[in-house]
Amino acid sequence: MSRPTTRTSDASTSRTTDDALVRALARALGGDDARVRTTDAAMEKYAVDWQNKYRGRPLCVTLPRTTEEVRAIVRLCAEYRTPIVPQGGNTGLVGGATPTEAREVVVCMERMNGILSVDEDAGCATCEAGVVLEDLESAVRSRGMTVPLDLGAKGKCQMGGCVSTNAGGLRLLRYGSLRGSVLGLEVVLANGEVLDLMRTLRKDNTGYDLKQLFIGAEGTLGLVTKVAISTPRAPLSVHVALFGLESFAKCVEMLKLARENLGEVLSAYEFFDRESLELVLAQLKGTRDPLPGKPRAFYVVVETSGSVAKHDSAKLKSFLSIVRRRGIVVDGVVGRDEKHAFALWTLRERISVALKYAGAVYKYDVSLPTARMYNLVTTLRERFEPKFGSSVKVLGYGHLGDGNLHLNISCAEYDDAIERAIEPFVYEYVRDERGSISAEHGLGLMKAEEIHYSKDAKAVALMATMKQTLDPLGIMNPRKVLPVAAVRAAASTPMSRL
Amino acid sequence: MSRPTTRTSDASTSRTTDDALVRALARALGGDDARVRTTDAAMEKYAVDWQNKYRGRPLCVTLPRTTEEVRAIVRLCAEYRTPIVPQGGNTGLVGGATPTEAREVVVCMERMNGILSVDEDAGCATCEAGVVLEDLESAVRSRGMTVPLDLGAKGKCQMGGCVSTNAGGLRLLRYGSLRGSVLGLEVVLANGEVLDLMRTLRKDNTGYDLKQLFIGAEGTLGLVTKVAISTPRAPLSVHVALFGLESFAKCVEMLKLARENLGEVLSAYEFFDRESLELVLAQLKGTRDPLPGKPRAFYVVVETSGSVAKHDSAKLKSFLSIVRRRGIVVDGVVGRDEKHAFALWTLRERISVALKYAGAVYKYDVSLPTARMYNLVTTLRERFEPKFGSSVKVLGYGHLGDGNLHLNISCAEYDDAIERAIEPFVYEYVRDERGSISAEHGLGLMKAEEIHYSKDAKAVALMATMKQTLDPLGIMNPRKVLPVAAVRAAASTPMSRL
Repeated sequence: MSRPTTRTSDASTSRTTDDALVRALARALGGDDARVRTTDAAMEKYAVDWQNKYRGRPLCVTLPRTTEEVRAIVRLCAEYRTPIVPQGGNTGLVGGATPTEAREVVVCMERMNGILSVDEDAGCATCEAGVVLEDLESAVRSRGMTVPLDLGAKGKCQMGGCVSTNAGGLRLLRYGSLRGSVLGLEVVLANGEVLDLMRTLRKDNTGYDLKQLFIGAEGTLGLVTKVAISTPRAPLSVHVALFGLESFAKCVEMLKLARENLGEVLSAYEFFDRESLELVLAQLKGTRDPLPGKPRAFYVVVETSGSVAKHDSAKLKSFLSIVRRRGIVVDGVVGRDEKHAFALWTLRERISVALKYAGAVYKYDVSLPTARMYNLVTTLRERFEPKFGSSVKVLGYGHLGDGNLHLNISCAEYDDAIERAIEPFVYEYVRDERGSISAEHGLGLMKAEEIHYSKDAKAVALMATMKQTLDPLGIMNPRKVLPVAAVRAAASTPMSRL
Repeated sequence: MSRPTTRTSDASTSRTTDDALVRALARALGGDDARVRTTDAAMEKYAVDWQNKYRGRPLCVTLPRTTEEVRAIVRLCAEYRTPIVPQGGNTGLVGGATPTEAREVVVCMERMNGILSVDEDAGCATCEAGVVLEDLESAVRSRGMTVPLDLGAKGKCQMGGCVSTNAGGLRLLRYGSLRGSVLGLEVVLANGEVLDLMRTLRKDNTGYDLKQLFIGAEGTLGLVTKVAISTPRAPLSVHVALFGLESFAKCVEMLKLARENLGEVLSAYEFFDRESLELVLAQLKGTRDPLPGKPRAFYVVVETSGSVAKHDSAKLKSFLSIVRRRGIVVDGVVGRDEKHAFALWTLRERISVALKYAGAVYKYDVSLPTARMYNLVTTLRERFEPKFGSSVKVLGYGHLGDGNLHLNISCAEYDDAIERAIEPFVYEYVRDERGSISAEHGLGLMKAEEIHYSKDAKAVALMATMKQTLDPLGIMNPRKVLPVAAVRAAASTPMSRL
């Protein structure tokens, strides 16, 4: 079986055929020009990622309103052998939803933004893929529930994108991963068929759990059009505390004590280093040092969420007294009220925005053994110092409770010499620690060819076999997630010779 | 591509070839007769399920000690085109781990019972597939942690079997499904290759999450040889209460109040009907009516697990006062101490043992909309009453908090007339409610051909395509999970025509 090649922008591409496809797409979307766009403005909005790091030149951007329209788009693209790039809120960090240089069709889901049901008895909600996370959160909050997922991009990221990237975020410590929370999906497959897996059952062991294939597949195996997700009771009481610590080892020691003493109400354990705080204070108006006086090397935000405020505050108080008595923290502050708690969270949540304002930034999102996680930051600093002095800043922050470090290298502008100093060093370091080169951001375009640092050749070959099986024409978000050569090889390698 | 047929016990089967395979297997297992068994005693132990409902006649039973030995077995079986039946603790309810009438090789995992690591810092453990759930629980308990899975069969069921059946059980309400808790797997594929997915990272978005394919696949896609699982902090305080209620509607009403008032410490919400209690009291020595006096129509066991006993008991007390004040419960009892709490749990946990003692039992494990769940039990009673009078008892109990009903039809002996009155009626009922015909037990041999009641044809075809892709020779636990015709069709149907 030979794999049909997808069409690229070489000289032989017939503009006439491209135009025919665009016209056919416009017809499929009811002749609505506003929903099949080719303008420069549309390109500036949908063909570039928000970091301005990846840029493509698609044939057009489509904005379907129904699953039926998505089907029609996929079928036309299959017929014309033209790749599809599904796009949610375009908040990704690895170029997974950005078109490439190839001639592609962007399928933007923002018009499929209906919340279909909110079921208080069953504790779940269903919605179309284009619903913004924050909008779903508002809808379920009014019924006393919460979406078991929260992340910095919540005001823009969409549920379909969250599912397709298996988004982690700030509540994973409490509610676990989307692989447990997502109850059902509707997916348009590469052959234009609709796979209806939209159930809201908490338990269903009838055959293979096909929806897991599409969670985290970044649109390379099919296009998620609807989502059913469990929505637990919203906590009635939330407390936030911020601590200053003198070493990373103490942050780790405190995590263990937090698990022991805060137990079931511990809902977040986030850390950032002094460098991250200084950047936030320098770049973002209205922020101030939460622990003025002596700067601390590390800061930890601890959040508790529970159902009885006085129990939660008693647990937090007892935890505070233990970590103080043992000399683990040097100082700390507990959010007095919602506003103050929000201000403390902001320091952690807006680091990535501050980084963007500060200039160019190389972003890495890795899983490492918790206790040794920060060594990567110090190692990189030692690597940069002699060559670049203080013009390059290395920052570390992240979800310590999940073993997830966000490593950021901030500098005035993107520079090949800096990039060469980072890669493949960071990937090799993570590989040697048996970590993950992408804890939650996915692989997208940025890391597709680097997958071997975290997965062995057999696993990659099996993934490519899955891809080949589900998308034999190779039209679903090609060049993302998997190495091009691996996908190509899968076309000619039967499973028995993997 | 035509699918090689697996060998069955027809007249043409060459006994010589069978003997050659058994001898080759014995050599591969170091010539250890005790680990390649063909005796009647071995057949009685490994070729029959514990309910004595399914029985096969395998060529032999193998007991590998290492992954390398499992590989060797799989390779030989592939070479001889002989199916493999992986077997864990043999505690399944749907014949998923029992050999069939075909000539097969049982691979029993009980000798691969090593606990490989218990990591308190990371909160996870790794073990071989044959480790008994209770043994892993003991090992992590001594370090202050718990396995996020508990079920009646814990003294016998093995971790590999739990993973392969995506076991649900009593703690799902608290810790979520295994799809979130399992961090890594090692799997021997049908081609004899080892797929090493043994990481202990909480977050890893590097490519497709291949381990999900094998969770709940009942050994039809590969053979799980090692497991890494997250192990949360063990609760320091556990409370158990048992309530008597007069209607199922009140059980459902109380569930909502339990979620609201017990919040993060609610760890189980189980119900059983009066008929179930009476069976337990009649069949099991040493049990007594927990609420003597007037019999109640329904009983609910509520469990809380938390880190501070006084907070948990305050929450429970407040919950009790609310449900009493609102007249939801008529009476109830709180476990005075560990022993008393255990006795209360026993009433719920040992219903299935009591059923076994009582004679023949038809067991169904379904997910249904919570509020209407019990209607299936009453409907079936109405159906049986005119034909069978009181000789057939219909019992309902289960994990109400997860929408999961265990429906049991108890009678003196298995009887085709009774079975015809149950099936396909139960399956059709569940289909019409958009429920699941197997919430947690899996499909195995019993329900493989019934999958269409819970999954549409497209989903089944895609599952069969997965099966065909991963196991083109069809040697991994054939006839389990998927309809035979669907698997056969997948061999000749490309994805594009699904």
